[in-house]
Order: sequence, then structure tokens, then C-alpha cells
Amino acid sequence: MDYKKTAAAIKADSFKMASLSRKTRDLALQAMIDTLSAHKDEIFAANEEDLKQAALDQLPMPIQNRLKFDDHKLSDCISGMKDLIAMEDPLFQELLKRKLDDDLTLIKTTCPIGVIGVIFESRPDALVQISSLCVKSGNCAILKGGSEAARTNRILFDLLYKAGTQAGLPKGFAALIEDRAGIDELLKCHESVDLIIPRGSNQFVQYIMANSKIPVMGHADGICHVYVDKDADLQKAVPIVIDSKTQYAAACNAAETLLVHRAAADDFLPALAEAAGSSIEFRGDTASQALMACTPAKDSDFETEYLDTILSVKIVDSLQDAVDHINHYGSHHTDCIITENPETAQRFMSDVDSAGVYQNCSTRFADGFRYGFGAEVGISTGKLHARGPVGLDGLVTYKYKLFGNGQIVSDYASGARSFKFEDIK
Amino acid sequence: MDYKKTAAAIKADSFKMASLSRKTRDLALQAMIDTLSAHKDEIFAANEEDLKQAALDQLPMPIQNRLKFDDHKLSDCISGMKDLIAMEDPLFQELLKRKLDDDLTLIKTTCPIGVIGVIFESRPDALVQISSLCVKSGNCAILKGGSEAARTNRILFDLLYKAGTQAGLPKGFAALIEDRAGIDELLKCHESVDLIIPRGSNQFVQYIMANSKIPVMGHADGICHVYVDKDADLQKAVPIVIDSKTQYAAACNAAETLLVHRAAADDFLPALAEAAGSSIEFRGDTASQALMACTPAKDSDFETEYLDTILSVKIVDSLQDAVDHINHYGSHHTDCIITENPETAQRFMSDVDSAGVYQNCSTRFADGFRYGFGAEVGISTGKLHARGPVGLDGLVTYKYKLFGNGQIVSDYASGARSFKFEDIK
Repeated sequence: MDYKKTAAAIKADSFKMASLSRKTRDLALQAMIDTLSAHKDEIFAANEEDLKQAALDQLPMPIQNRLKFDDHKLSDCISGMKDLIAMEDPLFQELLKRKLDDDLTLIKTTCPIGVIGVIFESRPDALVQISSLCVKSGNCAILKGGSEAARTNRILFDLLYKAGTQAGLPKGFAALIEDRAGIDELLKCHESVDLIIPRGSNQFVQYIMANSKIPVMGHADGICHVYVDKDADLQKAVPIVIDSKTQYAAACNAAETLLVHRAAADDFLPALAEAAGSSIEFRGDTASQALMACTPAKDSDFETEYLDTILSVKIVDSLQDAVDHINHYGSHHTDCIITENPETAQRFMSDVDSAGVYQNCSTRFADGFRYGFGAEVGISTGKLHARGPVGLDGLVTYKYKLFGNGQIVSDYASGARSFKFEDIK
Repeated sequence: MDYKKTAAAIKADSFKMASLSRKTRDLALQAMIDTLSAHKDEIFAANEEDLKQAALDQLPMPIQNRLKFDDHKLSDCISGMKDLIAMEDPLFQELLKRKLDDDLTLIKTTCPIGVIGVIFESRPDALVQISSLCVKSGNCAILKGGSEAARTNRILFDLLYKAGTQAGLPKGFAALIEDRAGIDELLKCHESVDLIIPRGSNQFVQYIMANSKIPVMGHADGICHVYVDKDADLQKAVPIVIDSKTQYAAACNAAETLLVHRAAADDFLPALAEAAGSSIEFRGDTASQALMACTPAKDSDFETEYLDTILSVKIVDSLQDAVDHINHYGSHHTDCIITENPETAQRFMSDVDSAGVYQNCSTRFADGFRYGFGAEVGISTGKLHARGPVGLDGLVTYKYKLFGNGQIVSDYASGARSFKFEDIK
């Protein structure tokens, strides 16, 4: 496979994809739903093979769990696709329509980014979600899934590809890369690929960024914090901290560090330790060691994404100390304050430099489905373009169309003509 | 000067800047207008010194011209600042307000990017424009201007800085770097600086991108095209091509290449050559050499930004050939079709992968002022975040605020609770 040629052909098709009507794209999504439902037994059989191999290879249990694609996962996928069909078209939206002068009209209109390379981990449902988001947003997708899900990904891709092209999508609307070496080839295709979305470890994302000229949207780390303020309702704080840490410890939006205001610590930390029992391993600073059973935290603990049921704990003297700690050690993903004081919450939300700033709820809510986006291609911790869970909005850009009738700039520079600047609603 | 420390202090102030009211930011802009007006003689005197030195140093005339800061430039700056004051606040805009469940409300709200480093060329008016845009959008600005404008930049900065801080902006709202070495120091401050906007040569922008972990927004090149279609009105085409090339040949939005449909070439090229006279040096492909006086174009001509009154010319067989040429050789900046056929124009605008796609008007319209943005910090040829002329919109990002009352994800995962997803208008 000549990646540069393939990518160039996909790029050429991306312009066809960009001009398809909403109807064609939605019908393609419906055809994809239909084919997944019709062939679910074959999909599950392929997944069984992947699962058997994973067990033989003794892959870690979290990976084996993520690999599973069953009736429950399929119906989640289909429900997300139905949501996407129902959603407003992200394309052809006029963000601005301005009369610059008579017969000179500027229209800022949304359009797809073009060709998006997505590299994702073991979950086969990610392939379905990402493909669907790209179809709805008019982007071509080059997909690379985890090798442990190879059989499931292959049948899912084949079904979606056949349904999509039969429903009128161009041949290049999607492609599947099946070998690891293909990632490095993809990274060289900066003339054809507009964006790479890597999902995986921090190290992997850094590798992608260092080895490609293609813009990368992704997150580097998920070091999320819960700060229990002096005005916290401890009845809320205890379950929120436990949920943020344990509901799915391997997720990027799980909390890694608990910050507690000194005035709340005496009451809160023992209550938390009792409620958590053995479900959380605490690593505390000196002050918190006196209040709960925990191992001593090193400074490096506060910059670690455990991906496990370990929580570092630190007692702080003020809101400002908590904010400073989060901005310094955090990864600008999602951070939560527990407080009943609305002004304190407002200041926390303004000063914490993260994509998600929460009051009185679990950090685990940071997710495209839970935000009502239908699906997500990932979560961005960058501040440009898209931030937080990335749904359809993050997959479109815009262009400026200017319709004239012979106008030249000399006439405006000389003062012979002047701009009118009237926005057209 | 310890750049990392200075940048960290500015970063700390960026959170104060982010929470200022619109009123404070607008009053600061008004104070800046007042001080510029009150001290204009001193500004012009400093500029005279810069101009004298530039003449002694025999700097190229285009640079000497750009360096000039006179009554005309000042009144343009002030008019842009007044426009900014009148504009809607780009901050605190609710892009989405959604009830996820009872007492669980998601608000997607605009906020500043934070700390922006801007490196600009000889025009001192750029300092005023960029500072104003950053104040209106609540960003802190670290500015580095051209050394040939050092005296003008220094007095402009001192006046703006004093007026801004007296009007209530934090001390770190702006800083001026005065030595070339400061650029490399700035590039190392990825922990404090959120975005670099370089304005300068392609080579310079590439250097910045290769030497910093900080995201860069800018344009690499300005290779803009005018395509004269077979359905063109040649009466419009001639002045548009001449204006696109000659109205300001050193600008990034000046045309570098003219593409002409074979069916229009016989009539058009001789007419263009006659109208242009000696104002344009044409470099044509073999077919166009037969129709007009021109030197032969090499393939490299079509990938050259001349920054001069030179225009490469190529005859093409179809709209598709023109589109393919533009997407291959262009820089995704601004490209224009001259045609009376609306369907042809629509296809050109859909298939040309550029920030600006024009019909029947000069490429020189690609500019923040001419789009009615008040000012611009630059023009982006990237497709992510901001595209085309970048005004206030490109200087803000957003964050997701989630207000809860103790909600945890376990309850939604188990089915004990379910999301309501009601958008609040």
C-alpha cells in the first residue's frame, strides 16, 4: 500500500464529501445502522475470536474488557448514530453574512476539516463512533485501531464502508490501516491529511506530535483534581471524590489528586477514608497523614496519572493555593470544586485553566455522551480549536466566501468607494 | 530579564485579565486612545528618528514605507480601537447552556486564550492593533516588534501600558521584548505562553514552529491565485487581476499566479498585457507565451511568493485543472475565480481548500479591516481554530462549566438516574 498515493486519493475525494447534502450523509448513517443490526452475529463472532486471542496472549484485564463488543455496546453505538442523524447539520452553517458594499457579500460558512487520521485504542466501538462523527461532519477518516481488535475492526469497517459507499459516499470517505508501520506512513502524509487525532498514552501522543507536520488534536494527560473547599457540603464531597476516583479509574477524566482546605480536613479526611474503605489507596502529604491511613506522597505523585485506584491527597491553606496547585500540576482537562459558596465556585471556575471546571459533581462527567454530543472523537486539553470532549463542532472549520461584481481594492484605498459593513441576518 | 519568571508572572495576571468586566477593558481602550492623541507629537518625533536611521541604514524602500507612523496611520489605529470598543464583548458568551439533569447544568462559555506572544514586522501600527485586540479579548500580550521601529514601538508601548494599568488592567497585561534574543527565550516559555502569532517571512514562521512547543497560529506563505474562467466577464477580469497583483505587491494577499481557461485566453491575455503595460512582469507557460509578451515560467515560479510585481501565468483546460493547480501549488490563503456562471463559482468555492474563496473581486480584500473585524492580529492559513483574517474571534477559546449538586456518574451508569439533555435558550 502506497500511503501517500492513497492519502492523496482520499484528499481528492474529501472535496466530494464536503459538498454532499445533509440528506446523503444522514441516509448513509442510517444504512450503516441497518447493516450493523443485520450482521450483528458475524460481528460478535469476530469479536469472540479477538477476545480468545487476547486471553491467550494474557492481555491485561482492562484491555480485555475494553475489547468486548456485545449487544450492549452495539446498541450504544446505534443509539449514538441515531442521535447524530437527528442533530442539526454542522456543515453549510452561515456563521456570518455581511454586506461589505453593494454587490460585495462576505459569507463565513462552516465546512469539513477534510481528511482526519484517527488512531485509537482497543475499543472497537470507537471505530463506529469516529466513523459516524466523520460522516455527519463531511470528513474523510483514515482509521487505525488497536491490533488486539483487528478482527472486530475489520468486519465493522467492511460493513460500514460497503453501506456508506452504496449510500452515495465517495470511495475515499474512509480507510482502515491494519499494520503498526502504517502509523508512521500516515504521519508523513502532511500534504493530504489535515488533522491527526491520537487516542492513547501521553507518550504515544507526544510521539505523534514530534514525528509529524500534521496538526494534532488530543490530550497529553488526564491529571484531574477535586478540591474540597472550606465551605463544602461534606455529604456531597465524599461520594463525589469516590466516584471521581473509582467509577472508572483508567479513564482520563478520573481524579488523580484530592486537595482539601485545611479548615475542612479534620472532618472530611477521616470520613472519606472510612467511606472508601479499601477501594482507594491514598498517598498523602504530611498534614493529611495525621488524619487518615495513607502512604506518604512524593512530589512526583502530584504529577502522575495513576490510571488506577490511587489518589494523592494534599491539604491547602486557601482557594488560591488550590488553584495554583491545579494550574501547575494539572493537565488542563477537568477539575472540580466542592463548595456551597457560589462566589468561591465562580472564582475557581474563572481561574482554573482547564477545559472543564466543575462545581459539586464528579469529574467523570467529562465525556461527549454525558454532555449530549452523541459521541466524541476524543477530549482536547489544548486551548485552540476545540477544548474538552470533541464532537461534531470540533470536526468542522470554516471558510470565507466573498461574492463580488468586479470590485478592486484600489477604489477603497483611494476613497473612491467606502465599505458599508451591514450584517445580513 | 529572566523570561521564564516574567512569563510566569504574566500568566498569573492573565487570570485577573480574564475576569475583568467588559467595562474595564473598554475604558482601558478609551484611555489608550486618549493618550495616543495627547502624545502624538512625541510619537511622530520618535518615528522620525527611526525613519532617519532606516534611511542611513539604507533599508529597502518597502520597509521604510511600512515603518512610517504619521497622522494618517494614527487616525486609522484610533478608528480601529473605537470600532473595538463598540463591538460586542467576545468574552462571557454562552455558546451552549444545557440542563444535563435536575440541578446539573452545563455552560460552554467563551474565555481568553491567556498569554499570547506576537512577533511582528516593521509596522508600528501593528503594535497598537495587536495590543487593542488583546485588551478587548482579555488576553495578555507579549510583543516583539521589528528592531528598525524600536523607538516608535517603545513610546507607543509606554503610553499604552501606562494608560492600561491606570485604567485597571493588571501589570502583566502587556510586555515588550526589545532584543532579538528575546524571541528564543519566549519560545521556551511553553508553560506560561499559550499561543505564538508570528508575522513575517515563511522561513521565520517555520523557524518558530520548529523551535517551540507553544502552538503557533500564522500563515506560511501567501500564494494566491486568480482564475479567469471561460465564462468570465473580461471587463471585470482585467482590473481585478491588475489590482490583485499591483495594489500592494508585497502583501500576502496579493496574487502570484494567474490561471486562464483555454477558451478565454486568446481574448483575455492580450487585453491584460495591454492594460497592465509595464506595471507587471509576466512569466508565462508555453501556451501563454504565444499570446502575450512574457518571460518563460519555470515550475518553481508557480510555488514562489514574489512579493513583487511579477505574475506567473498558466493556461488550463478546465475548472478542475484550475482547482487542482491551486490546491497543489497554493498556500490555502485566498483564491479567486472570475466567472459569471454561479454554478462554476459554487464548485470553485467548495473545492478550493483555502481560507478565502472569492468570485469576481480582488484577492486584496482578504484583510481584517476589509472584513469589518476592526483589526486583525494576522491571517491564518491553518484550518484549525481560526482561518483567514484573525480578529477577536480567533483570540478566544471556551471552557465547559458544570454546576452540580452532588451528582456522581455511578448513578447514571447503573441506570438509577438518566440524563435529560434540555437546551436552555
